[in-house]
Amino acid sequence: MRHLLGIEGLSQGQITDILDLSERYVSRNRQNDKHAGGLEGKTMVNMFFENSTRTQASFEIAGKRLGADVLNMSMATSSVKKGETLIDTALTLNAMHPDLLVVRHQNSGAVALLAEKVNCAVINAGDGRHEHPTQALLDALTIRRRKGRLHRLTVAICGDIAHSRVARSNLFLLGKMENRVRLVGPRTLMPTGVDKFGVEVFEDMREGLAGADVVMMLRLQKERMDGGFIPSEREYFHRWGLDAEKLSFARDDAIVMHPGPMNRGVEIDGEIADDINRSVIQEQVEMGVAVRMAVLDLLSRHNGPTGIDV
Amino acid sequence: MRHLLGIEGLSQGQITDILDLSERYVSRNRQNDKHAGGLEGKTMVNMFFENSTRTQASFEIAGKRLGADVLNMSMATSSVKKGETLIDTALTLNAMHPDLLVVRHQNSGAVALLAEKVNCAVINAGDGRHEHPTQALLDALTIRRRKGRLHRLTVAICGDIAHSRVARSNLFLLGKMENRVRLVGPRTLMPTGVDKFGVEVFEDMREGLAGADVVMMLRLQKERMDGGFIPSEREYFHRWGLDAEKLSFARDDAIVMHPGPMNRGVEIDGEIADDINRSVIQEQVEMGVAVRMAVLDLLSRHNGPTGIDV
Amino acid sequence: MRHLLGIEGLSQGQITDILDLSERYVSRNRQNDKHAGGLEGKTMVNMFFENSTRTQASFEIAGKRLGADVLNMSMATSSVKKGETLIDTALTLNAMHPDLLVVRHQNSGAVALLAEKVNCAVINAGDGRHEHPTQALLDALTIRRRKGRLHRLTVAICGDIAHSRVARSNLFLLGKMENRVRLVGPRTLMPTGVDKFGVEVFEDMREGLAGADVVMMLRLQKERMDGGFIPSEREYFHRWGLDAEKLSFARDDAIVMHPGPMNRGVEIDGEIADDINRSVIQEQVEMGVAVRMAVLDLLSRHNGPTGIDV
Repeated sequence: MRHLLGIEGLSQGQITDILDLSERYVSRNRQNDKHAGGLEGKTMVNMFFENSTRTQASFEIAGKRLGADVLNMSMATSSVKKGETLIDTALTLNAMHPDLLVVRHQNSGAVALLAEKVNCAVINAGDGRHEHPTQALLDALTIRRRKGRLHRLTVAICGDIAHSRVARSNLFLLGKMENRVRLVGPRTLMPTGVDKFGVEVFEDMREGLAGADVVMMLRLQKERMDGGFIPSEREYFHRWGLDAEKLSFARDDAIVMHPGPMNRGVEIDGEIADDINRSVIQEQVEMGVAVRMAVLDLLSRHNGPTGIDV
Repeated sequence: MRHLLGIEGLSQGQITDILDLSERYVSRNRQNDKHAGGLEGKTMVNMFFENSTRTQASFEIAGKRLGADVLNMSMATSSVKKGETLIDTALTLNAMHPDLLVVRHQNSGAVALLAEKVNCAVINAGDGRHEHPTQALLDALTIRRRKGRLHRLTVAICGDIAHSRVARSNLFLLGKMENRVRLVGPRTLMPTGVDKFGVEVFEDMREGLAGADVVMMLRLQKERMDGGFIPSEREYFHRWGLDAEKLSFARDDAIVMHPGPMNRGVEIDGEIADDINRSVIQEQVEMGVAVRMAVLDLLSRHNGPTGIDV
Repeated sequence: MRHLLGIEGLSQGQITDILDLSERYVSRNRQNDKHAGGLEGKTMVNMFFENSTRTQASFEIAGKRLGADVLNMSMATSSVKKGETLIDTALTLNAMHPDLLVVRHQNSGAVALLAEKVNCAVINAGDGRHEHPTQALLDALTIRRRKGRLHRLTVAICGDIAHSRVARSNLFLLGKMENRVRLVGPRTLMPTGVDKFGVEVFEDMREGLAGADVVMMLRLQKERMDGGFIPSEREYFHRWGLDAEKLSFARDDAIVMHPGPMNRGVEIDGEIADDINRSVIQEQVEMGVAVRMAVLDLLSRHNGPTGIDV
């Protein structure tokens, strides 16, 4: 594995390898001395063209615990604004000999384009509506730990599917691991061509959640409200917001997930989010650091344990 | 000591312990190799909801010299802006297993609220008008070094008392150590209910400074000018700005303090600020790093030398 | 060497020493473990009053590879905005005992002023139109490696000379090393008093480039367009933009340089910039990290290899 640009190109075996290695870092992170080593003398750069305090912090913590020298480049104020192209930015940074480049960009495909131009390993931390692979991996690790397996589960992904790279990466991953995936949400927020993923589509939450093992809520981008996509917050919550009544249609032991940050009272009821018997939202964040450590570790060796280049 | 949320809950003994430990770091910081160690493998996060370059830098230097992995999260651009609550932000960060959380927030009580929700040690780096405990501790260390003691001194705190968490924390600390504290400033900038602190209140600078051992000037928030609180800069300087003439009413060996950043020519005359025989303003900054190292060191052990939880 | 404020005060021997030491770091940076050591326990602060993502990153990488504790202080949002003077900012930071201070400032002379007030080593990372010494040093290293020598070369510096600290530092350095320097560009962008540097001035690119060993393009500040200095982008590119036709007047083995970030199609044609036989633009960036490591290393010892204070 040279880069991690998306889940689409990963094999079942590679996914399992990453999750297995992540487990080791989960234990490590719960200890008093969290240094795990492995990246001493390596330079890791966070290049976030889109702000994301939590994802950037997760990668930064992961890199530092592994001993890397970590830089945050706030690209919003960078020379990209001075008219420099993305490619020139990539080439410039590449000349400084980084080892690991973590990139978030507002345009789908921008991270892959950048990866072609550099010699180091590139990790996609979210590109447009395309992919957000470490999010899908951390979701998978959370599910596997809670449900004891990562296959033959019924997973309902709910909300703004059309604009969500989180949904897209999860669709790939859950499909590869042979789960039954359902998409639930307003028709206006459902992508075209979902058929190719072999999923079921529901507009009604109760039908979509019936018998689900995992209920994965998505963040609603509020700027899409009242813009033709969906009605008001109140109406959205009424029809697609997860509350106790709707959740009662899922399995009794169903877990509730959310990639954060949450809009309480919009896509999820605050009480459900805080219910420690159902909600695994904090655990997702914890798994995020572990998964990112595993990915950084694997990529810094320049080929994964299975020796496959993705 | 699990958290450091304010001076109000500290005992005399705890204050003395922190100052004694700080002295060791003062020496360390003056050496060529400033690494003091003790926080290797620990994750420290600076969460500044209010910008403060100097205080953030002071904590960051303190953490790095102790060997911690230090992260700066610029919360002004964070998901708090995306509608996430403070509690969700705290829970999210907590799930990443930080060991030390340094928080500045514009709202009084916000840091204590956050501390309830996390497993790690929390340090209040200033919350609203409530407290700024490390500032009071660094002021105390500066006074103790210059005056040879931290009790039975006459300390005049001057300026915008009402809006100042610095004044409030100093009131607690100086009171606990049995000093005589005076508040000097315009009536409109004097808090209600100062009586409970057992202090004397003066509107006239010359009366308030008469016989003082320590003259502690506060920063004037310029946005309070011409808004009913106080008249123009010129008028303010004339009546409450510290100059040589007003300072002559204090003791001959009185020291002049200011938490910075200074408005020269508003609350303090530039010549007084630069007078190395009177002004200890740079020494306060130096003590700041040492005090913060001591606090981080103590809290990372999860209970202080006196074993008391504050 | 206590500070590095400009090239003007350096001797030939000092320049050669810095470049020789830089060569060692070039090799080091190409290895897997890039840690070179030497600055453990030192505190280095990047103070950028003007944003510059690439220069700041270059210094940050340099400092971290040497083992320093590196802080970035974003001065655009700092207490300077609260009315604090540059001197007070310097004194405050100085009290925190940094060892190395890297400063960029919009005003010529501001870095030298700041250097007078602090005890630590100061590196000028660009001040107004004055100097940008590490840029000239990295340019020199690139030239020396590509041309095999750094003397008796014909170097054409082209474009907005008047506003360029890069041009100014290069003029000093190339002059000291006994090269023949030409300035090429519109008269409105040519500084007054260039005669003292003993250079030739050309308005015509073809004449200026005739027989040149090195063609050094400068970034055009677009805000100077249509403001009386120069006409439109198209017209500028037509007359002073480097393209294959104009470059054909230089020597066949002439190299093309640019300090970045580039305006492709304005001061340089994209194909020339990407021609790996002519363009050394990426190599300049690589040399930048090495040169900065050498400078940080030398200054941290508080006197240079030649023992001369500049």
